[in-house]
Amino acid sequence: MVYGRNPVLEALQHHKPLDRIMMHHTISGENIGDIIRLAKESNVPIIRVPMEKLNTLVRGAHQGIVAFGSFVQYTPIQDVISHLYDQGKTPFLLLLDGITDVRNTGAIIRTAVCCGVDAIIFSERNSAPLHEDMVKTSAGAMMQITFCREKSISQILNTLKLNGIRVLSSDLKAEHTLQDINFREPCCLVMGAEENGISSATQQACDDTFIIPMAGQFDSFNVSVAAGIICYEAMKQRMNIKS
Amino acid sequence: MVYGRNPVLEALQHHKPLDRIMMHHTISGENIGDIIRLAKESNVPIIRVPMEKLNTLVRGAHQGIVAFGSFVQYTPIQDVISHLYDQGKTPFLLLLDGITDVRNTGAIIRTAVCCGVDAIIFSERNSAPLHEDMVKTSAGAMMQITFCREKSISQILNTLKLNGIRVLSSDLKAEHTLQDINFREPCCLVMGAEENGISSATQQACDDTFIIPMAGQFDSFNVSVAAGIICYEAMKQRMNIKS
Repeated sequence: MVYGRNPVLEALQHHKPLDRIMMHHTISGENIGDIIRLAKESNVPIIRVPMEKLNTLVRGAHQGIVAFGSFVQYTPIQDVISHLYDQGKTPFLLLLDGITDVRNTGAIIRTAVCCGVDAIIFSERNSAPLHEDMVKTSAGAMMQITFCREKSISQILNTLKLNGIRVLSSDLKAEHTLQDINFREPCCLVMGAEENGISSATQQACDDTFIIPMAGQFDSFNVSVAAGIICYEAMKQRMNIKS
Repeated sequence: MVYGRNPVLEALQHHKPLDRIMMHHTISGENIGDIIRLAKESNVPIIRVPMEKLNTLVRGAHQGIVAFGSFVQYTPIQDVISHLYDQGKTPFLLLLDGITDVRNTGAIIRTAVCCGVDAIIFSERNSAPLHEDMVKTSAGAMMQITFCREKSISQILNTLKLNGIRVLSSDLKAEHTLQDINFREPCCLVMGAEENGISSATQQACDDTFIIPMAGQFDSFNVSVAAGIICYEAMKQRMNIKS
């Protein structure tokens, strides 16, 4: 945790990985304009809070502003995609839309590394911050993959579309089945929250949806298992493994 | 919990699902011979304990014997296999060898139901009892599948062999890869514990082992994700789904 106007400004100027900044509702004056601008550039969310909240977080002189260090460094999606295209690669991205459970997230990160996913994307609005527990739940895989975070899902989907990346997700009502989907083109798999699935806005933005075939009469797999099956199927296509 | 000589004997006589029986080290006399015989017939483990242990469990007159109700009814493996063969089916079984984590077990049970696994097998020696929490972690799938439990893994493997069921497991050092394995014959997939994998005795008893292909440089998937990928691949073969 970093607090005070100058320390927070310096953390931003030196590109320290920050998860979020909390500032007082009515704060203004020295450095605040610069802090807001730099936070925006670095995709660090700013949350406005009452003074009592800041007082419970910090005993010292916080001057109305507290920044939380991030456990990982986020890379802008556009940089990741441009870099992949520059290297002649076909992007394979994973967007986690509302998955907040630490163990599911950890298992999915581990799967992503195993299956050659290029980056995992979160939105600020509906994801828990990546934290130390996930190093364990991901069996260390967390240190081996690129993470992106943008303000909102719509912003993420927009960047993907502009870069020619197809957005794919599973849907119990879909017409296609998993093995009919083409994962050889630039694509981003969206996995939704355990309870509610992906948001309807995301659903509408999907270029294609599919069902995972099932032998038994049951509604769905656990979300990290479903992500594993889909990434495995995608990897097989991308590595030209025939079954 | 049922306690006292007569109540425990009656629970066994009426085939109430019991998870285990704890009895005093030196107990003998009235009903004890019958209890031991019936417990053995029903595959209910008997654990010998000091009187202090029983006193902490029960405030009333336990008479040196306490039985714990089981959340599920276990079916003898031989009955399950005979029933499947009688119906003209090709058994597809799942043996969990040392997986004790509630969430992984729950996710695997859910996968088993989705992928048409016929029964899930545990050994008494190295599995946690199936309990109420797994209804939630399996999203209710626990109520939709057959469970078997035998005294030891070697006893389980013996029954499988005698019934012509091939024993298969993943192994990081295997020569074959998952998609080369034949799941169309009667088979049992063994999944080992998260940390230690399957025991070396089980490993030696396997008819075939395989690796799950990987694009990334990482050692392994989460155990419930790996079970998901393998059961999915097996299901595709058994349902004749081409990819």
